[in-house]
Amino acid sequence: MTTQAARAEVPHAPILLRETVGSIAILTLNRPAARNSLSEGMIAELHAALNAIRDDKSIRAVVLAANGPAYSAGHDLKELTARRSDADRGRAYFAQIMNACSAMMQAIVHLPKPVVASVQGIATAAGCQLVASCDLAVASEAASFATPGVDIGLFCSTPMVALSRNVPRKQAMEMLLTGEPISAATAKDIGLINRVVTAGTERDAAIALAQQVALKSAYTVKLGKEAFYRQAEMSLADAYRLAAEVMTENMMARDAEEGIGAFIEKREPKWQDK
Amino acid sequence: MTTQAARAEVPHAPILLRETVGSIAILTLNRPAARNSLSEGMIAELHAALNAIRDDKSIRAVVLAANGPAYSAGHDLKELTARRSDADRGRAYFAQIMNACSAMMQAIVHLPKPVVASVQGIATAAGCQLVASCDLAVASEAASFATPGVDIGLFCSTPMVALSRNVPRKQAMEMLLTGEPISAATAKDIGLINRVVTAGTERDAAIALAQQVALKSAYTVKLGKEAFYRQAEMSLADAYRLAAEVMTENMMARDAEEGIGAFIEKREPKWQDK
Amino acid sequence: MTTQAARAEVPHAPILLRETVGSIAILTLNRPAARNSLSEGMIAELHAALNAIRDDKSIRAVVLAANGPAYSAGHDLKELTARRSDADRGRAYFAQIMNACSAMMQAIVHLPKPVVASVQGIATAAGCQLVASCDLAVASEAASFATPGVDIGLFCSTPMVALSRNVPRKQAMEMLLTGEPISAATAKDIGLINRVVTAGTERDAAIALAQQVALKSAYTVKLGKEAFYRQAEMSLADAYRLAAEVMTENMMARDAEEGIGAFIEKREPKWQDK
Repeated sequence: MTTQAARAEVPHAPILLRETVGSIAILTLNRPAARNSLSEGMIAELHAALNAIRDDKSIRAVVLAANGPAYSAGHDLKELTARRSDADRGRAYFAQIMNACSAMMQAIVHLPKPVVASVQGIATAAGCQLVASCDLAVASEAASFATPGVDIGLFCSTPMVALSRNVPRKQAMEMLLTGEPISAATAKDIGLINRVVTAGTERDAAIALAQQVALKSAYTVKLGKEAFYRQAEMSLADAYRLAAEVMTENMMARDAEEGIGAFIEKREPKWQDK
Repeated sequence: MTTQAARAEVPHAPILLRETVGSIAILTLNRPAARNSLSEGMIAELHAALNAIRDDKSIRAVVLAANGPAYSAGHDLKELTARRSDADRGRAYFAQIMNACSAMMQAIVHLPKPVVASVQGIATAAGCQLVASCDLAVASEAASFATPGVDIGLFCSTPMVALSRNVPRKQAMEMLLTGEPISAATAKDIGLINRVVTAGTERDAAIALAQQVALKSAYTVKLGKEAFYRQAEMSLADAYRLAAEVMTENMMARDAEEGIGAFIEKREPKWQDK
Repeated sequence: MTTQAARAEVPHAPILLRETVGSIAILTLNRPAARNSLSEGMIAELHAALNAIRDDKSIRAVVLAANGPAYSAGHDLKELTARRSDADRGRAYFAQIMNACSAMMQAIVHLPKPVVASVQGIATAAGCQLVASCDLAVASEAASFATPGVDIGLFCSTPMVALSRNVPRKQAMEMLLTGEPISAATAKDIGLINRVVTAGTERDAAIALAQQVALKSAYTVKLGKEAFYRQAEMSLADAYRLAAEVMTENMMARDAEEGIGAFIEKREPKWQDK
């Protein structure tokens, strides 16, 4: 808490912190006074950090955390509103931001390494979308989730793309139409997050979960994560065609040969990229 | 209860009641003696009422309720059976009814205003489909849900279109293959409904939920609801392309400018269409 | 238990047992010493048994059970590994096995009769896929489920096709990325199975569930099951077009005429194919 408070008060503190714990990259949204809103700068920093992690062989998993009382409040409304004085009343800028934000969210999905959200506070609108876009999510029992755009006349249309791919239809609609927050417990019940933990332990729990996956073969995780999201959009027959090809490729890889050999010989596997 | 009993006994009472509470239209299935079956007449009245509501600017949300012990028993089997003496043994009529019913169900989905089911009793077959087709659903703890067509040799094929878009696959299959009813509590657990309330309070709870959404910008709700069902059928990339466009359009609209302005200025927004 | 132990010790016991209880075929994986792994032989026997059942009018439903402590451990890793000495390092064989296994899993989905898994122990990898591929699943409270391929460098890519069509995205991802087993209770919560029963009663419970469906019209169940999986891959409009056609065909069939007639006359229906 002291560290967080200190960070929040540093005048020119970076808006996105990057730390490394073993092979885990921890990205921490660090604009607590602005409720970690996804400003143009924050979106760009997140996307750049994801790109750097994608190409960094020493990193095997990512934790996406936040400082302050809110996880993220979504788009920066003041920044958007300021562009209403543009010649086109902001249209080009709004389109640019929405596309940049959607591209960043899809970069999480397409990152060949697992991304675990560590949610310590309220995650709203594009902040809720950020959690929904991660592969896994751990939340404090004090966290909550909402898509309240409807309350300010701006329906959470981009957040709903991620939300509705995690949560059953009627529950997603209730969040989107009422704007009401749901508790971490409810978020777990309806599939938005994986685990609820005691407040203050969510960061450690998310790191532990990321480390668990980081011990696996990086090649295998990359192959599997990519196939997961691809097959999800296919018919059953096409999904099986893809998955059978992926399994065959996977069998031919050195890490499967090592892993299966180790399993049969009852020893620990040694992964190639480790 | 007295009112309902009285209505049921009126010889020529309308089969679909329409009331207005503030900006909420309440449609009440009113053929309790026939368990509110979706006869040709009932389907037509529901579809006509939805069309009228679509074009009525004073209405911002709909509650779909029912009088009597059953919410709706689905298709009117006597009416269908009577057409077996047609020259084609009823084929043309059956096709016409199934298409008319499917069109009415899709009119709920395409209505630019939220529709909340208020379920007081058992909802079976196309009656269960009606609940599944609504955007939101509130049920009495005494309500139950079933797709029992399989028991009479007529699989609930059209109901399953709506059911399987609300409920996980194995749970939907269990309802469809066994025909067994599920309780309101189970229906909530598996995603078919949003809320279970004390028996007798479901109508008020559904109206309150509808009113909550009716306080939002009608433009925003329309835009969002339409985008929700469209993006649900798209790939992730296409869904984001659509949603980013919708967000940009939404930002340019007067209600978003007003809503965001009000939020920043900490005052209540005044929507255009209110 | 004695019977199971005895079977396991018979030197040339069949690897797949087939019994008939009334109109229910019970297929029992019977390689307990090999944890019922889905060897080339087991896949072929399962597929052949499903084909025989498809064409056997006396059979109306299937129970898929297993002997021994494990339900199924998935692919036979020793059999696969032995082919690494092939000229192509096993590639052609691996592709053949993955395609054969995927075809067998899809044969369950396309079988015109319901298939109920009876899960007595741990179901892992393709063993978990087998459960996910069944229409319904009953599990012992002692059963568990995992997709642990990631631990041996071989991501459960084909299992995830079935798993991710049963279970919400984040929960599926957690199983796939961590390899951790989930309990029967959790499997029910997230939609992978229908029912959890006292250990030792799962076989009887699965048979009872299969018998319940076997009492329905075989024609109706066939029509409905086929339509269920077809419409699941369609847009809402296309799904309704298909389902309305299916309902009309269904109405014209003798079993619907009989079933609806029996319902109206308050008597038991007599199905044609019974």
